[in-house]
Amino acid sequence: MNINDLVDHYKSVRNYSLKLTKPLSSEDHNLQPETFVSPAKWHLAHTTWFFEEMLLKPGLKGYKEFNSLFVKLFNSYYQTVGKPFNRAQRGNISRPSLEEVLQYRTFVDEHMLKLFNSSPTNEQKELAELGLNHEQQHQELLLTDIKFAFSINPLNPIYSINGIGINVIQPSTSNEWIDIEEGMHTIGHSGNGFCFDNELGQHQVFLPSFKISKQLVANEEYLAFIEDGGYKDFKFWLDDGWTWINENSIEWPLYWEKIDGNWHSYTLAGMKPIEPKAILTHISYYEANAFAAWKGCRLPTEFEWEAAASKINWGKRWEWTNSAYLPYPGFEISPNAVGEYNGKFMSNQMVLRGSSIATPNGHSRKTYRNFFQPTLRWQFNGIRLAK
Amino acid sequence: MNINDLVDHYKSVRNYSLKLTKPLSSEDHNLQPETFVSPAKWHLAHTTWFFEEMLLKPGLKGYKEFNSLFVKLFNSYYQTVGKPFNRAQRGNISRPSLEEVLQYRTFVDEHMLKLFNSSPTNEQKELAELGLNHEQQHQELLLTDIKFAFSINPLNPIYSINGIGINVIQPSTSNEWIDIEEGMHTIGHSGNGFCFDNELGQHQVFLPSFKISKQLVANEEYLAFIEDGGYKDFKFWLDDGWTWINENSIEWPLYWEKIDGNWHSYTLAGMKPIEPKAILTHISYYEANAFAAWKGCRLPTEFEWEAAASKINWGKRWEWTNSAYLPYPGFEISPNAVGEYNGKFMSNQMVLRGSSIATPNGHSRKTYRNFFQPTLRWQFNGIRLAK
Amino acid sequence: MNINDLVDHYKSVRNYSLKLTKPLSSEDHNLQPETFVSPAKWHLAHTTWFFEEMLLKPGLKGYKEFNSLFVKLFNSYYQTVGKPFNRAQRGNISRPSLEEVLQYRTFVDEHMLKLFNSSPTNEQKELAELGLNHEQQHQELLLTDIKFAFSINPLNPIYSINGIGINVIQPSTSNEWIDIEEGMHTIGHSGNGFCFDNELGQHQVFLPSFKISKQLVANEEYLAFIEDGGYKDFKFWLDDGWTWINENSIEWPLYWEKIDGNWHSYTLAGMKPIEPKAILTHISYYEANAFAAWKGCRLPTEFEWEAAASKINWGKRWEWTNSAYLPYPGFEISPNAVGEYNGKFMSNQMVLRGSSIATPNGHSRKTYRNFFQPTLRWQFNGIRLAK
Amino acid sequence: MNINDLVDHYKSVRNYSLKLTKPLSSEDHNLQPETFVSPAKWHLAHTTWFFEEMLLKPGLKGYKEFNSLFVKLFNSYYQTVGKPFNRAQRGNISRPSLEEVLQYRTFVDEHMLKLFNSSPTNEQKELAELGLNHEQQHQELLLTDIKFAFSINPLNPIYSINGIGINVIQPSTSNEWIDIEEGMHTIGHSGNGFCFDNELGQHQVFLPSFKISKQLVANEEYLAFIEDGGYKDFKFWLDDGWTWINENSIEWPLYWEKIDGNWHSYTLAGMKPIEPKAILTHISYYEANAFAAWKGCRLPTEFEWEAAASKINWGKRWEWTNSAYLPYPGFEISPNAVGEYNGKFMSNQMVLRGSSIATPNGHSRKTYRNFFQPTLRWQFNGIRLAK
Repeated sequence: MNINDLVDHYKSVRNYSLKLTKPLSSEDHNLQPETFVSPAKWHLAHTTWFFEEMLLKPGLKGYKEFNSLFVKLFNSYYQTVGKPFNRAQRGNISRPSLEEVLQYRTFVDEHMLKLFNSSPTNEQKELAELGLNHEQQHQELLLTDIKFAFSINPLNPIYSINGIGINVIQPSTSNEWIDIEEGMHTIGHSGNGFCFDNELGQHQVFLPSFKISKQLVANEEYLAFIEDGGYKDFKFWLDDGWTWINENSIEWPLYWEKIDGNWHSYTLAGMKPIEPKAILTHISYYEANAFAAWKGCRLPTEFEWEAAASKINWGKRWEWTNSAYLPYPGFEISPNAVGEYNGKFMSNQMVLRGSSIATPNGHSRKTYRNFFQPTLRWQFNGIRLAK
Repeated sequence: MNINDLVDHYKSVRNYSLKLTKPLSSEDHNLQPETFVSPAKWHLAHTTWFFEEMLLKPGLKGYKEFNSLFVKLFNSYYQTVGKPFNRAQRGNISRPSLEEVLQYRTFVDEHMLKLFNSSPTNEQKELAELGLNHEQQHQELLLTDIKFAFSINPLNPIYSINGIGINVIQPSTSNEWIDIEEGMHTIGHSGNGFCFDNELGQHQVFLPSFKISKQLVANEEYLAFIEDGGYKDFKFWLDDGWTWINENSIEWPLYWEKIDGNWHSYTLAGMKPIEPKAILTHISYYEANAFAAWKGCRLPTEFEWEAAASKINWGKRWEWTNSAYLPYPGFEISPNAVGEYNGKFMSNQMVLRGSSIATPNGHSRKTYRNFFQPTLRWQFNGIRLAK
Repeated sequence: MNINDLVDHYKSVRNYSLKLTKPLSSEDHNLQPETFVSPAKWHLAHTTWFFEEMLLKPGLKGYKEFNSLFVKLFNSYYQTVGKPFNRAQRGNISRPSLEEVLQYRTFVDEHMLKLFNSSPTNEQKELAELGLNHEQQHQELLLTDIKFAFSINPLNPIYSINGIGINVIQPSTSNEWIDIEEGMHTIGHSGNGFCFDNELGQHQVFLPSFKISKQLVANEEYLAFIEDGGYKDFKFWLDDGWTWINENSIEWPLYWEKIDGNWHSYTLAGMKPIEPKAILTHISYYEANAFAAWKGCRLPTEFEWEAAASKINWGKRWEWTNSAYLPYPGFEISPNAVGEYNGKFMSNQMVLRGSSIATPNGHSRKTYRNFFQPTLRWQFNGIRLAK
Repeated sequence: MNINDLVDHYKSVRNYSLKLTKPLSSEDHNLQPETFVSPAKWHLAHTTWFFEEMLLKPGLKGYKEFNSLFVKLFNSYYQTVGKPFNRAQRGNISRPSLEEVLQYRTFVDEHMLKLFNSSPTNEQKELAELGLNHEQQHQELLLTDIKFAFSINPLNPIYSINGIGINVIQPSTSNEWIDIEEGMHTIGHSGNGFCFDNELGQHQVFLPSFKISKQLVANEEYLAFIEDGGYKDFKFWLDDGWTWINENSIEWPLYWEKIDGNWHSYTLAGMKPIEPKAILTHISYYEANAFAAWKGCRLPTEFEWEAAASKINWGKRWEWTNSAYLPYPGFEISPNAVGEYNGKFMSNQMVLRGSSIATPNGHSRKTYRNFFQPTLRWQFNGIRLAK
């Protein structure tokens, strides 16, 4: 990797985090209405800590950490480097202040540039690249987290009047099925570009023939499911999903609300009417699966998705697949702290493929494996059908 | 009540809230690590809303509320005026900002002064007095809440270097038992001064003779209980208390921590060594009860406490009594929203008497009935023995 | 106490337990649908174990226990004699079988008679009397437990066609208020007859004048409360009670069910129509308190109840009082295992006075203090009003 | 299918259920210490109800059900035929008695024979075959359920002195790795024999080369993992598994107990010493996965398992695979009640392959897909390694 390119990439990614948090007040920076949400300030600090912990402390000669207690606050889940702070309390870290966290970012950035200037090893360059991709993941989370956090406030705060993710219309509106022939497909990443460890172990997968929709499901299609009683009929639902919607009184997608008889949705631009032709978002795996069953279709597997990726319109919504998040053949876990990055989460989660309108530029590829528990809806998730 | 005195009292109480929050940053103002804790900003807004809702809206001609949505955020538990905001989410109200809440305070203060200038009725003056006493209660909560909120931060933030409540030593250190003869005692409030509705219904109570300690229990006495295995022996504990300490692994008072073999406690002035002679604080009813059993004593009832109040040193710690929080004979509930102030909480709580070093000046009297669930420890609670 | 009377009492009480369990099959003997319910077989074994543990093991020379492992199964909550069996699993003790438990009863009875024949000490006679009163308490629980257990079975099993507690009509139906003058009253037990330790410490209580209803509340009165929307209006409810009915969707008394538009209730004689004039039963403290508020009345305190006991009709329903279960002045706890009988439960429970149609003959007196958590409804509880 | 063979099979399977329950008393028949355990009597009744509901009611002319309320008790999870009985209360069905349930079995058997004698359709024969396989699944559950239920009783009840599953030694003790070459493998069932719907949709799967152990893991190997601190080191564990063992204080397999320094295990023959060479059992997926990681190996996928099945020793333990339970390509769900049999459980469970010493004869095949949540340990589960 060219060091100048890396430095440019570093500056650009680090800067983008600050751009994203610009519309937020210092008070907005600490919101955490649910444990799975993290505050914006925490995202800013944690991504910085990642560089400090993984690169500067072991690798920059004479480096003295900004504050030796920060590891206790901003380590997310790396048990290799000590007991992480109680995740449910991330919103209660008023100290350090936002200002200090911004100073921390500047401090670490200066030292990262020093490291880049001192002939870094290949391993260091790769770790830096990992740190940047890690920060990009948090940039997307930051947006979905602030959306969730604002949504519980009856004042309906606005993040940005342009919004993100509202009323995204498909490139083409004609519904079209793509036919993929039976055959062998190459799955997983290879080559020089960056990828996460869970994409490695490129391998062959044999797939029977299948059809996959070129388009993602639109709001009006999902509305038909709701109006047909889809949330009231057990026969469309997985048993766990049926229990989940009933225990939580779930009857429509996250953020939806009927106001004076018309469906609206909370968005980062405030409360907005639902656009029938726009792409559905904020649904769980269970809802995606039930909708597919109601349609007489199914969700694609992650292998089918990857095999078809070049022929479909993707990039607007993370797409639930019918594949559990499990290791590829030959998956290997690093013995260092970064070994905790992906592998230990390979249970009870489903794979999502593609990317969303909240994904930073340059952070998507057809081998990317995103993963979430089947009930989670706060990402910009959508549905693509297969049969 | 003299209207000038009321105006002076109003200004002084309202001002004291701002003085208390001065050491806090805007980020500090939104901390809520547990549902029973409320953020400082919420305290500032809620106490203001109380005046607006109970006095200005019904009583000031032409009053237009500052923001018609604030009732959805800052109503604590008055169902008479609508569904209260989810208590567990008070820490996630970044909007309105602290600045706007301070403007809200100014706005309401200006209108309250208008009301005071327009020949208020007696009922209005009484409601204003209630609002001020209500705000004083929240001033004490604000301090105990910020202490709890800061205590979970490994940076050990300091609220004020003078601290509050640390190492408070008894006025006299000789332990002395006061004898109270069998006889009739007048319990409850009468006369012109302010009191809450739960103190009214002054009545006679006949008490057998008893002894009550002049002093509160000191840290060194409680340490002897710990070191004697008091937390390990079921026979000192109420059954519910025994379950509670075991399920929560409780082995010492809240905020205590052994550092390098020496007991310390988190205080509003930071982490400090335990002073053996200082008055014990931050213990639950169950711990108070167990300690008393270990001593071969018991806790006083609230009637014994009130009967003895003029002869004992009180005012440093809220003192757990062995009385459940229940209505006095003739207790009456107002049909208005303020009727929800006290009466509906008369179950599953124990009475505490006295006041603490965090209680605002002028907000204590010997008939005052404070009340909390028996497990709660974040107030400045202490122990007085009887036998 | 005369030893012959004691032996007669022993035989009669022990025999009554067997009479009560006669309608039950061996499978019925192990039902435990909720943790607070105990199976009939467990009641039979536990009451027997009480005599073995408290009297035979320490006091009968040469006594060898029936089975040394039974203490692990049939100790309810006496930590003095070891870790009690998990209460939630009492229904899963298929071994020992019912037959063996009956043999255990015979074995212990034979040895108790030996003890009675060998000049028992006064303390032993008192412990035997305690054991018999203990067994009588379990006889009442056995009936209410089997009622609860049968009630969840859609086959509506019948315990006895005569039933217990169904459609009990008041001795007189005219509603009458008894006036009690202000004055001093003697509360608590004294004299030679048996009582529990929590009734001791006879003392004087001064009471303001009050009125108390001669009658208990009838079904038709409570129906009027339901039909008036009593369960839907927060203003009648204690805050904890309001939370409880809403979280548990409680809208009428336990066991009630509307069948074809008519109220029925599951009873020990099967599903029966509600008799309007019969005495209401199976309500919680919260419901009793809310009903009283709706009526513009209140519940009596336990002291008022005892002061008025000779003038009211009681004995059909356990009557919720507005007194928390707390020690009398001078209450003392035995240092032996029996010291765990009562005192350790003195928190978070309310006192019930009187007795019910399920209380064994000879097991009631006006000083008796029963106690339960405010949500529990499976006893034959009722409401008496005061004002 | 030959009707005589079917009748013979019917009689033999139905009879085997009675044989299995012979050692149990009527009280033993109702044990349910945890919700996932079902009582023996319920198994006997539910499997009978399956024939009545799926075959006799729709298909035998003039059939009148034994008791029209039984559907409310013995329907497990078929929402198509009404609301199932609360699963957690299956142990509290004392009525109908065991005797009546046995009469119910006889009644249904007589009518099934009538059906078999009246020229049943192919669909009916297939449903009967499904009912028999269903009953065989419950026969295995019955054994594992009674083991779990007995294990919580300190009397250590014995089901049978011959026991089941204790100290099962491998056919050969030399550890041997089988090499499977890269290539295409046929997965899933085809042909005339019975299989469940989840095995259908035979398809080709391409697998990279791998090694799989001929042997299952023995107790002594797992003991080495325990003694090496395997339960104390996060790095071997999936994140969910680490949380699970810590929250539940899990440090060894289910039923293990150290008595006087020696490992024992509760078995259906009572408490027995652990035999080092015997095959490990009663471990969760998380433990299996952690052990494999500690060994530097992994678990096989269900496809690898099936591809290797003819070359390995299997049939003693259900073998956790690293495959989530998901549909095969072309999986179809019946529109009738039996459609609820398998498909709706395809989330959050892992596949187990093989069979165990508790599996009835004739009820195993290499395409069989068993499935359980990753924490469940009460089946006779074991570990086979791959790499």
